[in-house]
Amino acid sequence: MRTSLKTFSLVLLALCFFISCKESTTIEPVSPNQLSSDEQIIDHLPSWNDSEAKKNIIAYVEDVTDRNSVNYVEVQDRIATFDNDGTLWSEQPAYFQLFFALDRIKAMAGEHPEWKNKQPYKAVLEDDMETIMASGNQGLIQLIMTTHAGMTSEEFDETVKNWIKTAKHPTKNVTYDQLVYQPMLELLEYLRANNFKTFIVSGGGIEFMRAIVQEVYKIPSEQIIGSSIKTEFDYNNGNPVIKRLPELDFIDDKEGKPVGINKFIGKKPIFAAGNSDGDLQMLQWTASNSKKNFELYIHHTDEIREWAYDKESHVGKLDKGIAEANEKGWTIVDMKNDWKVIYPFELK
Amino acid sequence: MRTSLKTFSLVLLALCFFISCKESTTIEPVSPNQLSSDEQIIDHLPSWNDSEAKKNIIAYVEDVTDRNSVNYVEVQDRIATFDNDGTLWSEQPAYFQLFFALDRIKAMAGEHPEWKNKQPYKAVLEDDMETIMASGNQGLIQLIMTTHAGMTSEEFDETVKNWIKTAKHPTKNVTYDQLVYQPMLELLEYLRANNFKTFIVSGGGIEFMRAIVQEVYKIPSEQIIGSSIKTEFDYNNGNPVIKRLPELDFIDDKEGKPVGINKFIGKKPIFAAGNSDGDLQMLQWTASNSKKNFELYIHHTDEIREWAYDKESHVGKLDKGIAEANEKGWTIVDMKNDWKVIYPFELK
Repeated sequence: MRTSLKTFSLVLLALCFFISCKESTTIEPVSPNQLSSDEQIIDHLPSWNDSEAKKNIIAYVEDVTDRNSVNYVEVQDRIATFDNDGTLWSEQPAYFQLFFALDRIKAMAGEHPEWKNKQPYKAVLEDDMETIMASGNQGLIQLIMTTHAGMTSEEFDETVKNWIKTAKHPTKNVTYDQLVYQPMLELLEYLRANNFKTFIVSGGGIEFMRAIVQEVYKIPSEQIIGSSIKTEFDYNNGNPVIKRLPELDFIDDKEGKPVGINKFIGKKPIFAAGNSDGDLQMLQWTASNSKKNFELYIHHTDEIREWAYDKESHVGKLDKGIAEANEKGWTIVDMKNDWKVIYPFELK
Repeated sequence: MRTSLKTFSLVLLALCFFISCKESTTIEPVSPNQLSSDEQIIDHLPSWNDSEAKKNIIAYVEDVTDRNSVNYVEVQDRIATFDNDGTLWSEQPAYFQLFFALDRIKAMAGEHPEWKNKQPYKAVLEDDMETIMASGNQGLIQLIMTTHAGMTSEEFDETVKNWIKTAKHPTKNVTYDQLVYQPMLELLEYLRANNFKTFIVSGGGIEFMRAIVQEVYKIPSEQIIGSSIKTEFDYNNGNPVIKRLPELDFIDDKEGKPVGINKFIGKKPIFAAGNSDGDLQMLQWTASNSKKNFELYIHHTDEIREWAYDKESHVGKLDKGIAEANEKGWTIVDMKNDWKVIYPFELK
C-alpha cells in the first residue's frame, strides 16, 4: 500500500489532534518512526471508529489495489463518486445553496425596491420561511434564477467566494465551509492515496460548488459534476465572457446522476457514496460495475453533533435507499457510532 | 433548433465534398534515424522541423513551467484543449464519424429489409450520394439518429470499437485510427510531461470519440468533451443501462466550445489548438486568460501527404480563424513545412 508523505503527515497531525478530542476513544501517541516501520498501525481513517464501516472500506481498497488479487482494478478505472449535500457536508436545516440564494436576495434588494411588495422576494426580505416554501417550485426557481443567472460565470464565482468567506450557518454559527465531515475528508484522501480519482456528483449547482469546494475537498473543478443552468458565449468586443441564463440545463439528481456520470466521466465508478434517495441510482449504477465495487450510504443519526433524520425528512430523505442498502449488503455509516468527530473544528 | 441546423449543414456539406473525392496518395517512409538527426539533447518534438512553430511552443512551455518566471503557471491551471477532427487526426474527405454512420446503415440493413425501398436508407445502400443529399437535413438527422441512438451506451461503445478495428479510410486505405498526426501525439505527450492536463474539445460525438481515441491519444474518457445526444437511465430490473435517445443534447462547436469547456472543466485553458473556424471561439476564450496563453492553428497545406484546404473547404473551413491568428500573432502550423511526418506509420 502506498502512502504519500503528504498523507502520512496529515494522518500524523490528525492523530495528534485526537488526543485532545473529548469525543475520541483513547489513542496512544505514535511516533513517525513507529508509523513507518509498522504498517499495521498507520491509521488512514483516524476519525472513524474501528467498526464495520471502516473495516469494510479498508478491506475493499486493499483488495482492489492488490496486484495479486483477482479483484485488482487498474488505476484508470478507479473512479470514486461522492454526493455533496449530506455526504461531504451538512444539508440542514436546508441546502446551503438555498441560504446563499436568500442572502443574495437580501444583498440585491437595494437595487430592487419593488421586491418589498412582490412575492416571493417580500417573504425572503421578511425572513418568512413559511411563505417562501408556500411559493412552491415556481417561487423557488424564481429565487434561484434571480440569484444564479443574469451575470457572467466569473462574476458568479466571485459572488459565491465572497459569500462563503462571511456568511454564517443559522444554528451552527460558523461559515458553511467548516461544516464538512472530517471522516469523509479522510476517506477522500485515503482513496486518492490509493490512486482513485475522486469526483463530486451532486444535485447542487456545478458552478456554486466549484467556487467553494475545490480547496476544501482537494478536488479540481473538472472533477465536480452538478446541476446547471444554460450558459452562452459572448465575444463581448474582444473581452469574451460566459453568460449565465435563467433556464435549467441539467438536473444532476436521482436518474440524472448516472446520466451525469456517463456524460462527464464516461466510465462507471467502482466506488460511490451518498446519503439520500437522490443518490440511489448512482449507487445502483456503481453496483452494476463488473469490477468489484463499493457502495456507501451515510445515515444521519447524530442529533447532538449534527442532525438525525432519514425517511421523514424533506431534505436528504433516505427511505428506499436504506432498504436497498440493507437488502444488498451495502455499507451504511451510522454517523453517531461510526465517526469520532463530525467536523474538522472538533479536532481543535 | 438553430445550432442543430448549423451542424447538419456542416454534415451536409461534408457529404457533398465526399462524393467528389477520388484521390489516393503514396507516402514515403521516414526512418527514426532521420528524425532524431544530430541532436545532443532530448528532442520532445522529433517530428517537428526546427521552424518557428516548434520554437514558439517550446519557448512558451519552458516559460510557464519555470518557477522563476513571472509567467509561471501553477500545475492545476495548466489546462490544454485540443480540437479533434483536422487537429489531432484527419477529417477529409468527410468527418470519420460520418463514414461510421454510413457503414452502420449498411451493416444494419439485414434487419431492415424495408430500407431497400425507403429513403434515405435506400440511397445509402446504393451509395447514391445525390439522393442522400436531396433528403436534406431531415434525412441526415434520420441517418444519424438511426445509427447513434436506440441502443445503450455500452452497445454503442462496442459497435464503434468493432468498426474502428476493421473499417478502412476510402482513399488512404488504412484504419481511421492510423490517421492521427504524429507531431500532435508528440505535442500532447510533451505538454503532459510538463504537467499540463490535456483535453479534447471537439464537435464530434463524445461517446464516439471516447470509444476510439483514449488509447490513441492517451487521454482518459473524463477529459474528452464533445457533442452529445440525450440519454436516460433505465434501472432495467436490476441491470441498469444508459439508453441513447434520438434527440440532440449539446453541440460542442463554435460558441459551444467555450460553453463546453466552462461546463466540463470549469477553468479557462492556457493552451488551445484547432484547425478551423469552428475552433475560433475556443482560441478566443483561451486568449482571454489573464495567465500567459498559447493559441495554435493547424493549417492544412500538404496535398501530397495529407490534404490542402482552408477557406474554400466545406470540411474544416479556415477563414476568419487564420485572419485573426495573423492579426493576433497566434502560432500557425504549416503542415507541409513544419512537420517531418504526418502519420505514425510513416515512421516505420
